[in-house]
Amino acid sequence: MSPNFEAIAESKAKGILSAIPDHWRLGIEVPPAEEQRDITGKYVQQFLTTSEIEITETDAVGILEKTTTGKWSAREVTEAFCHRAAIAHQMTNCLLDIFIDVALEHADTLDAYYLEHNKPIGPLHGLPVSLKDQFHVKGAETTMGYVGWIGTFEGQKGTGKERRFESQLVTDLRQLGAVFYCKTSVPPSLMSPETHNNIVGYLLNPKNRHLSAGGSSGGEGALLSLRGSPLGMGTDIGGSIRIPASFNGVYGLRSSAGRLPYEGTPNSMDGQESILSVVGPLGTTLRSLTFVMKALLSKQPWLHDPMVIELPWRVEHESRLHAMIGNIGISEKLSFGVMRRDDVVLPSPPVRRAIELVVKALENAGHEVIEWQPPSHSRGLETAVEAWMYDGGEDIHNAFSISGEPPISQISRRYGAKPVEQKTATEIAANNITKRKYRKEYLDYWNSTAKLTRSGQPVEAFISPLSPYAGTKPDEYRYLTYSTIINVLDYTSVAFPVTHADRNLDVVDADYTPANPADQQVFESYDPEIHHGSPVGLQVVGRRLQEEKILSLAQMISDLLL
Amino acid sequence: MSPNFEAIAESKAKGILSAIPDHWRLGIEVPPAEEQRDITGKYVQQFLTTSEIEITETDAVGILEKTTTGKWSAREVTEAFCHRAAIAHQMTNCLLDIFIDVALEHADTLDAYYLEHNKPIGPLHGLPVSLKDQFHVKGAETTMGYVGWIGTFEGQKGTGKERRFESQLVTDLRQLGAVFYCKTSVPPSLMSPETHNNIVGYLLNPKNRHLSAGGSSGGEGALLSLRGSPLGMGTDIGGSIRIPASFNGVYGLRSSAGRLPYEGTPNSMDGQESILSVVGPLGTTLRSLTFVMKALLSKQPWLHDPMVIELPWRVEHESRLHAMIGNIGISEKLSFGVMRRDDVVLPSPPVRRAIELVVKALENAGHEVIEWQPPSHSRGLETAVEAWMYDGGEDIHNAFSISGEPPISQISRRYGAKPVEQKTATEIAANNITKRKYRKEYLDYWNSTAKLTRSGQPVEAFISPLSPYAGTKPDEYRYLTYSTIINVLDYTSVAFPVTHADRNLDVVDADYTPANPADQQVFESYDPEIHHGSPVGLQVVGRRLQEEKILSLAQMISDLLL
Repeated sequence: MSPNFEAIAESKAKGILSAIPDHWRLGIEVPPAEEQRDITGKYVQQFLTTSEIEITETDAVGILEKTTTGKWSAREVTEAFCHRAAIAHQMTNCLLDIFIDVALEHADTLDAYYLEHNKPIGPLHGLPVSLKDQFHVKGAETTMGYVGWIGTFEGQKGTGKERRFESQLVTDLRQLGAVFYCKTSVPPSLMSPETHNNIVGYLLNPKNRHLSAGGSSGGEGALLSLRGSPLGMGTDIGGSIRIPASFNGVYGLRSSAGRLPYEGTPNSMDGQESILSVVGPLGTTLRSLTFVMKALLSKQPWLHDPMVIELPWRVEHESRLHAMIGNIGISEKLSFGVMRRDDVVLPSPPVRRAIELVVKALENAGHEVIEWQPPSHSRGLETAVEAWMYDGGEDIHNAFSISGEPPISQISRRYGAKPVEQKTATEIAANNITKRKYRKEYLDYWNSTAKLTRSGQPVEAFISPLSPYAGTKPDEYRYLTYSTIINVLDYTSVAFPVTHADRNLDVVDADYTPANPADQQVFESYDPEIHHGSPVGLQVVGRRLQEEKILSLAQMISDLLL
Repeated sequence: MSPNFEAIAESKAKGILSAIPDHWRLGIEVPPAEEQRDITGKYVQQFLTTSEIEITETDAVGILEKTTTGKWSAREVTEAFCHRAAIAHQMTNCLLDIFIDVALEHADTLDAYYLEHNKPIGPLHGLPVSLKDQFHVKGAETTMGYVGWIGTFEGQKGTGKERRFESQLVTDLRQLGAVFYCKTSVPPSLMSPETHNNIVGYLLNPKNRHLSAGGSSGGEGALLSLRGSPLGMGTDIGGSIRIPASFNGVYGLRSSAGRLPYEGTPNSMDGQESILSVVGPLGTTLRSLTFVMKALLSKQPWLHDPMVIELPWRVEHESRLHAMIGNIGISEKLSFGVMRRDDVVLPSPPVRRAIELVVKALENAGHEVIEWQPPSHSRGLETAVEAWMYDGGEDIHNAFSISGEPPISQISRRYGAKPVEQKTATEIAANNITKRKYRKEYLDYWNSTAKLTRSGQPVEAFISPLSPYAGTKPDEYRYLTYSTIINVLDYTSVAFPVTHADRNLDVVDADYTPANPADQQVFESYDPEIHHGSPVGLQVVGRRLQEEKILSLAQMISDLLL
């Protein structure tokens, strides 16, 4: 226990700001949310040059088209994103680290490589990639939101790994040509759907500063929303990629466990294998996510991470879909499930409207949409809730106790003020059996949709809310089932933006009687005035390890929404 | 607690015998081991007709060539194997159930199908398949070696599933055309490398009746050795497929977890997910194993078992190998690792000779063999030992207590007389981390062999003992590391026969000083006179989920040994 966690945190926070050069200081005070609700787009552009705006508003694939052909230098791209990220941080506190010099130096070596060999070093040559402050990257530290981790390696001093050890994913990205320049904010332990820590404070949504940026990859969401990054890497054990992607109007992929390398990346309750956290990309376009997935799998991550399955990118899975949806001549109509609500909570009006927009778009294009009526999601969720409590909170409380900092409210609500009794081996085994049986039941349900579709085939995917909220006010995110059930099932899910909350279209149904406390909480948390303008996303969900297919389908749906 | 477990067991044992028709009774007493050590081959043939011998000594692929083209009827094939299995059981007590009428009736429906459609019902049309008495099959009960499970469904009465519920694998095999006719003997709980239960007693090795048939799929091993089955299905959490395959001179595949469906198959300590038991085939030829793997994967088991990975049979993995080893014109030399011994125990002389036979065969064919010097196997093994004790033996003791039967000695040695304290969630998580780190270390070692090979590529596979014993006398199997380390790593392994113990070639080195108690136990357990004639197998081991490749390599090595 250290009495001065505040001092350590403050010093870290100041260090981030002081890493930003003077000429990139904002110079002005950002007006309060009441005056300037949305600081993305035009607002943030005022601090940038035309050239910086052009670069930073190009998606990852567009950037790579330039950097791998010598049209843009890695340095100018890196510098533009460093500048925009620095501005984003000054406006939102979305970063836990920024290392501009290291990034520019790396960019210079890439430019030198290109000059010498007249070819890029790899498919991600010169692409700035932001990292959730959970990944280890050489030259920087990792806090995972804990004050106690500042100046340490995962809470320990003198390991020799401080600022040296690198997560496998980061090394792979680096070898592919990516440039790292910042670590994005997270809640301590990552076990929260909002981003709040004792280092840089609470993270608001740049699109609607009355609301949360979501979590736990909230810094990624906010930074992408402000275009301070073209592509970021997050992790997801209950919605931590998809919630911030959705709240911030960008795309996020929750890949299935074993598809991307987690090796060398710290985590809360590491070794809890019932519900595995997974790695996945967030980005401003879907094609960026697909591109980085292909690039990462080209590294054969199964040769470096024993948890990764030998499963190269299956072009044939994409091409089957492209054939079916008409991209290469043959056009066939597909069947989708739609889940308008689960068995406990009715989503907020903007989310319900988003669902209808997608259903209409699919149906207008001739696709079939059937009701998705799977085994109870609330029942399925219990496995995750149980798994997160196996150790009674010991690991998380240990991490807080390093510095003596208090848990943030989202964490103390779940894990209390101190650890409780651990689960026994028999209880853990029973939970694994419950999980397996639930997955089996869900699989059988999915197969059974063959009886309901015109084609006689099971649906290709289902569309569902990934959050009942269209953004939440601080500390109001409570109901996780829509996102977390996907982690229980280990399915592939892509979060994609659909619309924005609209005070005129998304009115409160005054006659609605909530069916239970969770329903009531979601019902009461929506305020048409406050939520106005907030991005609203949904998820398209596929079976396990269907990343190729679900990214293709998400693209098809997004195109139909244009 | 029931006082009369002996009566229940005896009634079950008598029931198995009484299911054998009178005209299939042996009629003679089999002479003791001292007079008739080996009862396979010529000895067992005396009880069969020429036609029955022809059928039962044809491998699964050969049988299917006949049954799928109408040359042999399913009935005549089934009848021949039922007869031979009935004889095998009378000589060894290798079965826990036999259901001839059900099998013949099923065979008749297959014959009728063929007659009507002039084509087989599936790729396994009319193939008799034996099942370890762990798999559920309609019309029969499952004991898993427990007296308490007799007349129940997994120890419970009145579930409505008794004799009705079927394991997914069994249903898949059935739909492919397989015929079931017997359940093979296992030790209660399956957690033993020998086969001994309170129902049909201790299972000796038909090739050398002084020795154990191995376990836990020991009934499969013995039945295959006597050619009472062309193909059987077993499971393996520490060597339970490979040990009996090896001891009985047949082939066995330990597939990686998630390749074949375990759904609906009971297990000990179900829900323990750190070291997963896996399903795999045992057979009299390698091509039989390959054939059944292809057939099973053609059923897309990932659509019916949520633990199965969507990974169809990859013909390209086979063909790459076939190209490299010259089967289709291009010939390239391969590199193998060879592990002559681990860090604790020197294998018995016959096993050491087997290793040298394989090394010489590979080198004579121009392949490269390098020393395999991986991270300590004995250290790696600790993860499995710990995982098997998570629940302190509660599940296993509960199952014994249903009938009040005493644990067999191999079980009580590990699990004591009553349950001990369970592991905590934190301890289980720590063990999972240890496992993952060990797997990573091993992966890195494997990759590092690229520096040692002529090709500059890592070795394709490594050759290792799967047991330090060339068979064991009853209750002398103690040292499991050679087989179990593969379960810790979740690697693909094929057990294949190499030679037989030979009292003239495999002499005891009287000067050898054992390095530790385990080494001493293995050293002392070998007796050239007693072991003479015992089959000796080895394993060829590939990375995770490399079933196609390792079966191909095992075939290549076996061909070189001819």
